[in-house]
Amino acid sequence: MNELFKFGKSVLNDQPFSKFMGAELSDLKEGKAELVLKIKKEHKQQHGFVHGGVISYLADNCLTFAGGSVLGNSVTSEFKINYIRPGIGSKLIARAIVLSSGKTQAVCECKIFSEDEGVEKLIAVAQGTINKVSS
Amino acid sequence: MNELFKFGKSVLNDQPFSKFMGAELSDLKEGKAELVLKIKKEHKQQHGFVHGGVISYLADNCLTFAGGSVLGNSVTSEFKINYIRPGIGSKLIARAIVLSSGKTQAVCECKIFSEDEGVEKLIAVAQGTINKVSS
Amino acid sequence: MNELFKFGKSVLNDQPFSKFMGAELSDLKEGKAELVLKIKKEHKQQHGFVHGGVISYLADNCLTFAGGSVLGNSVTSEFKINYIRPGIGSKLIARAIVLSSGKTQAVCECKIFSEDEGVEKLIAVAQGTINKVSS
Amino acid sequence: MNELFKFGKSVLNDQPFSKFMGAELSDLKEGKAELVLKIKKEHKQQHGFVHGGVISYLADNCLTFAGGSVLGNSVTSEFKINYIRPGIGSKLIARAIVLSSGKTQAVCECKIFSEDEGVEKLIAVAQGTINKVSS
Repeated sequence: MNELFKFGKSVLNDQPFSKFMGAELSDLKEGKAELVLKIKKEHKQQHGFVHGGVISYLADNCLTFAGGSVLGNSVTSEFKINYIRPGIGSKLIARAIVLSSGKTQAVCECKIFSEDEGVEKLIAVAQGTINKVSS
Repeated sequence: MNELFKFGKSVLNDQPFSKFMGAELSDLKEGKAELVLKIKKEHKQQHGFVHGGVISYLADNCLTFAGGSVLGNSVTSEFKINYIRPGIGSKLIARAIVLSSGKTQAVCECKIFSEDEGVEKLIAVAQGTINKVSS
Repeated sequence: MNELFKFGKSVLNDQPFSKFMGAELSDLKEGKAELVLKIKKEHKQQHGFVHGGVISYLADNCLTFAGGSVLGNSVTSEFKINYIRPGIGSKLIARAIVLSSGKTQAVCECKIFSEDEGVEKLIAVAQGTINKVSS
Repeated sequence: MNELFKFGKSVLNDQPFSKFMGAELSDLKEGKAELVLKIKKEHKQQHGFVHGGVISYLADNCLTFAGGSVLGNSVTSEFKINYIRPGIGSKLIARAIVLSSGKTQAVCECKIFSEDEGVEKLIAVAQGTINKVSS
């Protein structure tokens, strides 16, 4: 495990909300992040699918980790998400990449998949801006 | 309490994720919805502010309730959110309105406020499309 | 006509594309901008409605003028637009306001109307981020 | 040239705005579209770069052609665009793909490049929803 990945794991561990949700950082490289979430009953909406808010949380957080991998300490300034399919199965996987980055800002995209019996399906796509936090 | 509001409360109550989060539907009229969330430790990120994912969950859900108030059973197709200020204080309030609606689709906007010692501040704005679920 | 409005008109006049399109700045105050475009044949798509690209141009430009009214020289970093109704009639009117602004960034919204025989209809809504250009 | 590409070219040719802008459809396959625009003086803003409205027009139109390649007659319901770099050079190239499509809706992404002395640079990314027009 590289230093960046270790550091990322410690950041996620410092987010009470991410622990509350049960998210795990499964990969972090320069320009690339992956988060995994085991789907539990409490993540669902009234029709038994994963709640959109769970998916948007994963997108938001994964975008920030991808952007942070090149910018350092940063926050999501804005993002947009399109829901494509209902979230069903055993887990969600969010994968974000940096499309472009400057000194203070990165534009990233994130694809969110659900895994059901070993088969991954694209359930949402997001695009957003990550801003470096000036320290 | 009108029938629509009662019905909305029962829908929110049927969402395990909304109960897990602690959100409450505080108003629902035709074309208008309001959700409230008491901020707890588990809603925060590593710097002590409300996690963006909590805010995006509220936006997503409030947009859907506003759209659903005119469309009936519906889902969020897509939305975009701009974060404006860190979420600090005792609670978050999301207020969404329908900007335009047709037979199968509504375009809604949502403003999210944090309340700190009785003072409300705008912390995020969202805009999205709600689709009627064909039954 | 205030100084800001005069300055805004000179900026628009310096944009070859805005002249090519025929847009006019009809109002500019701190935190508020309005652009008007007379609809001509060359603005249309294959079904006789105003092309979406004309509407998105107006949204983009009006968001930038609103943001620029509080930030000074600035550019649109990103925006999102929802099309609501076909653009029909004699002219388009875009009205943008600043929802929130800091030292380097403003979040703005824009509503675009078409005017047909004196009746205005909302045809699109946009939301975006304007960044100050560091000089 | 396949039938779809021919048909796409005739559609673009029927858009007065696209002719006014000088855009050309350079590729159209199932799930994929490419538009090219030679940069002229009238496409620019006050600093000599391509106006954001030109880039958003290309994104809007290219998203619709990509969506239309799988849905048939369709319109852009909404999209979001992030500007990354100033548009400089001899031409703009927009490339859109379908990320997911159902019976009535497709989610597409579009990357816009500028070409300067043979070198392509990513200048903007867009993501949006295309709706089939019910006939």
